[in-house]
Amino acid sequence: FEKNLEKENLYLEYDKKLDETIFEKKDKIFTLTYTKDKDYLFEEDKEKYFDNASRSRIVNFILRRKPFSDDKTEAFSFGKHIYDICVNKMIKDGHYSDAYPLHEGHWKPGSVDNTRKRLFDYWANWRNFLKVQPLDHVRKYFGEKIAIYFTWLGFYTQMLIPASIVGLVVFFYGCGISGGSYPAKEVCDPNKNFTMCPLCDFQCPYWDLRASCSHVVISRIFDNGGTVFFAIFMSLWGTLFLEFWKRKQAKMQYLWDLTDFVKEEPPPRPEYLAQLENVTTYKEDPVTGMKEPHLPFWRKRVPIYLMSWSIMFFLAMLAVVAVVGVIAYRVSVLAALQIYSRLAFKLTDWECLRTQKDYDDSITLKLFALQFVNYYSSIFYIAFIKGRIVGRPGNYNTFFGARQEECEAGGCLIELCIQLAIIMTGKQLIVNNIMEIVIPKLIKLIKRKIFKISKEKKMNAPPWERDYRLESAQHTALFYEYLEMVLQFGFLTIFVAAFPLGPLFALINNILEIRFDAIKFITQLRRPLAQRLPDIGIWYSVLYGISRIAIMSNAFIIALTSDYIPRLVYVYAYSPDGTLVDYMERTLSKFNTSDFQGSNVNVAQGVEICRYRDFRKPPNDPDKYEYSEMYWHILAARLAFVVIFENLIVIVTGFISWLIPDVPGELKIHIRREAYITNEIIIKTELLR
Amino acid sequence: FEKNLEKENLYLEYDKKLDETIFEKKDKIFTLTYTKDKDYLFEEDKEKYFDNASRSRIVNFILRRKPFSDDKTEAFSFGKHIYDICVNKMIKDGHYSDAYPLHEGHWKPGSVDNTRKRLFDYWANWRNFLKVQPLDHVRKYFGEKIAIYFTWLGFYTQMLIPASIVGLVVFFYGCGISGGSYPAKEVCDPNKNFTMCPLCDFQCPYWDLRASCSHVVISRIFDNGGTVFFAIFMSLWGTLFLEFWKRKQAKMQYLWDLTDFVKEEPPPRPEYLAQLENVTTYKEDPVTGMKEPHLPFWRKRVPIYLMSWSIMFFLAMLAVVAVVGVIAYRVSVLAALQIYSRLAFKLTDWECLRTQKDYDDSITLKLFALQFVNYYSSIFYIAFIKGRIVGRPGNYNTFFGARQEECEAGGCLIELCIQLAIIMTGKQLIVNNIMEIVIPKLIKLIKRKIFKISKEKKMNAPPWERDYRLESAQHTALFYEYLEMVLQFGFLTIFVAAFPLGPLFALINNILEIRFDAIKFITQLRRPLAQRLPDIGIWYSVLYGISRIAIMSNAFIIALTSDYIPRLVYVYAYSPDGTLVDYMERTLSKFNTSDFQGSNVNVAQGVEICRYRDFRKPPNDPDKYEYSEMYWHILAARLAFVVIFENLIVIVTGFISWLIPDVPGELKIHIRREAYITNEIIIKTELLR
Repeated sequence: FEKNLEKENLYLEYDKKLDETIFEKKDKIFTLTYTKDKDYLFEEDKEKYFDNASRSRIVNFILRRKPFSDDKTEAFSFGKHIYDICVNKMIKDGHYSDAYPLHEGHWKPGSVDNTRKRLFDYWANWRNFLKVQPLDHVRKYFGEKIAIYFTWLGFYTQMLIPASIVGLVVFFYGCGISGGSYPAKEVCDPNKNFTMCPLCDFQCPYWDLRASCSHVVISRIFDNGGTVFFAIFMSLWGTLFLEFWKRKQAKMQYLWDLTDFVKEEPPPRPEYLAQLENVTTYKEDPVTGMKEPHLPFWRKRVPIYLMSWSIMFFLAMLAVVAVVGVIAYRVSVLAALQIYSRLAFKLTDWECLRTQKDYDDSITLKLFALQFVNYYSSIFYIAFIKGRIVGRPGNYNTFFGARQEECEAGGCLIELCIQLAIIMTGKQLIVNNIMEIVIPKLIKLIKRKIFKISKEKKMNAPPWERDYRLESAQHTALFYEYLEMVLQFGFLTIFVAAFPLGPLFALINNILEIRFDAIKFITQLRRPLAQRLPDIGIWYSVLYGISRIAIMSNAFIIALTSDYIPRLVYVYAYSPDGTLVDYMERTLSKFNTSDFQGSNVNVAQGVEICRYRDFRKPPNDPDKYEYSEMYWHILAARLAFVVIFENLIVIVTGFISWLIPDVPGELKIHIRREAYITNEIIIKTELLR
Repeated sequence: FEKNLEKENLYLEYDKKLDETIFEKKDKIFTLTYTKDKDYLFEEDKEKYFDNASRSRIVNFILRRKPFSDDKTEAFSFGKHIYDICVNKMIKDGHYSDAYPLHEGHWKPGSVDNTRKRLFDYWANWRNFLKVQPLDHVRKYFGEKIAIYFTWLGFYTQMLIPASIVGLVVFFYGCGISGGSYPAKEVCDPNKNFTMCPLCDFQCPYWDLRASCSHVVISRIFDNGGTVFFAIFMSLWGTLFLEFWKRKQAKMQYLWDLTDFVKEEPPPRPEYLAQLENVTTYKEDPVTGMKEPHLPFWRKRVPIYLMSWSIMFFLAMLAVVAVVGVIAYRVSVLAALQIYSRLAFKLTDWECLRTQKDYDDSITLKLFALQFVNYYSSIFYIAFIKGRIVGRPGNYNTFFGARQEECEAGGCLIELCIQLAIIMTGKQLIVNNIMEIVIPKLIKLIKRKIFKISKEKKMNAPPWERDYRLESAQHTALFYEYLEMVLQFGFLTIFVAAFPLGPLFALINNILEIRFDAIKFITQLRRPLAQRLPDIGIWYSVLYGISRIAIMSNAFIIALTSDYIPRLVYVYAYSPDGTLVDYMERTLSKFNTSDFQGSNVNVAQGVEICRYRDFRKPPNDPDKYEYSEMYWHILAARLAFVVIFENLIVIVTGFISWLIPDVPGELKIHIRREAYITNEIIIKTELLR
């Protein structure tokens, strides 16, 4: 519980940009944990002691511990029967229908001025989509947890601007060079005639390489030196993003007095105590010394954990197999996902975790792992597996008797690119936002039709009735918001080498997303309980993990999926004149159709030699169809690229994050100044006493 | 300034193992920053308020600020003239010859019992080399900075035990398989006759591969699957070392009350103020508000920094060139190093850094960079460059007209191995320890001869005179101790793939090193000023950097320097029967001596075909002496190994350091318990008032 100490000018940037006529300008004031014996340090005005969010937290603290029983000994205890004695019990028993903090007035035009309305008008409204967010006021109204989310989202959106610009430049550069460049010219040349081997076992005909002309031209947009540069750029961008976020977070923590934030000794979750009602082994909590029911570690905890995580692993594998094996082209397996996340919650319940934080972290990791596998496995499949283990004409590898899928005529990169475009635009921009905005509106409309409540009656209802009609702000609401954004971050960093427009689409999406989320919290949900959290929690680790995976993934996409390295090797080692002329002629392998065996009926079409994409020896070689020297040469170059790229990026990013201090220098001085002034005041006052 | 709060049983392991009759058992007591208004929390006995080290720190604090001038306004100021008014000024002007804390009595047998003698007898003495260190008492006598060093050294030595054992097992496994294994059998076979091309341009004869028989057998000891396993093991060991050290450090910080350690607002260094005496631009210190001389950032700081670091970079490059180009075989360039480190100090003086910590960090990085380049560049040269860019017979690459050095007959790995053995045993074990112990003893002996001070007179001299005769404990004393150990850590992690016995030698060295250092601090140096430091500072970053470099380096040594990958490729892809039979026959390239040109006079020796180590096409091929398919195949396999090894290790180590919490769970509970109890007492006492 803090109070003001002394005013000093320390405005934040966004405070300066805010319209001061609407949101009162707030000076940064020195704050200090309140102690009674140093009363002289604090302001006199008791009304200003606590802000709106703190008050609702205090009320909730009291309600959650106020016993509805006559047993005086249990007053304000964290003991076993908390689930039976507090407001939760009353709700469970049906005496109350629910308990929630109230919104401040109404947001609709024409209602009396209040914080909610002001936030709606100048933050959540569409017109403000380019304005800075009044984060300080969001914090005061919704509490630190939600304010930190919007801070993060705003910061992420800002950081996307340079990435989008560079991405766009790279894209235009790609467009510029794609038409006149060599492999495309050769493929589209009407005088050349490459008869390609069929892409599947039955039905498929021999085909002319010219058919893939447009695909090759498009894939050249994304498959050039610019993309390599952009992949390096985005790897550094990811590191800078995390480093600068740490600094931003430190700044917000200081401004919001979360710097020395020590969590209150967390009580056990009510559900946890309810689950353990039948457990007879009690154990003293080592901190508080109070008796709590206890699960023996080796006998109970370990088997439950093992089972829980092995089931999760099994599910994830199942998802991978399903996506890769059967439905590689579908964007995601929505139905299965629903069942999976239900199961994840059940499993986490089983784990019987004591505090809310443990529970949240566990469920976050589980759900994220499932979503990651679900969304990313089809993309990973296209990027690294599809068309790579097909074997060669006449000796295809089979899997349960079926030949492996091959990439389309233009190569795997273009397929990857199309998939990403679908996800980034279709799913992220359109489907998600419709789900978030349109469907709740529809539900509300239907509800209104059914219950036939007139607008006037509604406006006149007492605030608790009005709020009761809104959806309850569930504990996991913010989780899904974070999840959506983190998955997006993953798409645009992990696969940036295949789709440089990713950051741009993400930027557009997020500018909308901020306002969508703001509208949701202000108009569609009950006011959530203000929670104090100093950071974005386990999501930071997840983001860090993604940025590391991105480095590997980009190295492999450029080296293995794109044609960049083979072209380079051709130019430097095989081309007679140091250009890409005759690249296709010399790199497409030859196959003698008389070597087709058994079921393959394509022999009859009168073609003697067909071509296929691979580096193998021609039919007239003694080791025919073995990998050629060029294959090993290109493979060595590809792997050398991976080694150089990864090590370079790891060294540079490591150096960058070592160089950038986690706390901005200016902030450090402010913190030290604050400590110094407090000390001076204390020393002076104590001397005067 | 701490004092006891309440006793509770929390013994540390090493406390248990200590002989309680000698060192009084010390219960861990709850401590708290002393505040006057909560006097009731503390013990009554004022004598116990401060320990020995704290007292000398307090005296030093007073002496450093006590003005020897009549100007009352400057009393206890951090102002400009501090260099002129304090004890330092008196020493500078010759009024005093020096100022230092005194040792407690004498350590020699027969003197009265005191802490110094007790520490000598039961810590520094050789007999104790297997006993745990009484770190708590070291801390009380020498202060936290030195105690943390010995804690770290002891911890490092302990961690070396498992590494040594595994290394020894790998070594014996290598010895076991080396004799009977294939390439060695083939090389030593008296019936085979490989005539090798000469290793240098003039003078060198053709030579028989059998001459390298013993080398090949020995190199097989270090060049097998066991080494690959050991490289992986040591990479994980390095990560675990750092993670567990963080935990150990957290524990020591808690026990020594450094957990919430906030440094006192650091005053400017006296040398800094002296340097700036002529500067006229003053600026208010943003924290204390006092006026201090100031160097403008862009006009002064940046040019100085740029120059300072570019000179360092130039020197480092010079060292690399010197080592690689001229004297690749010498262990180090000792003379140059002396000049270099003087220069490093001069440059850091130029940088004009305000606080002692900034200065220390800057000089540490500089000196470490120089030492790193000096010690490691010759090893890196042998590991990765030597014998790799020599070209081929008949077309050698030249460098200033001279042909590149080749590795000896046994290959580069065995040379690397020999170099490492020399450094680890010769330099580390013998030379360094002689330098540290024997030379100071000699100096002392000579001094005694010159000044002819009888033993009795010496024993009867007042303690300040006795101590004055000892060497002064310089600020950098601990720096060189850390440096030696960190360089050793580098040798054994970075090159572990070439020398699995490294950890064992390091272990032996360190068991001695602990006692050498202890003897040095107790008997040969004046008592250093007790300094409070919460951690090992910038050395942690250096160790972390080394452990990352080690992962890369080991991957490359196994892939590029050893013969492990070529043998694997031969077995799986080229060998007719899946064994290493005829490995040499099929991998040594052939050269037709009639293709020697110009100055090369070796043609006359009547040899038609000579062999050389490389994978090139035979003389009868149309592209003769070009890289063969096998070359590219092996290169691809080598790089694939690097990619897999690095990514695997990075993922696993990342996961490990994420899993292991930085603060042990038990300690967390203790800290929370302490906070809880303090709160309870405060609440109760305030209620009673």
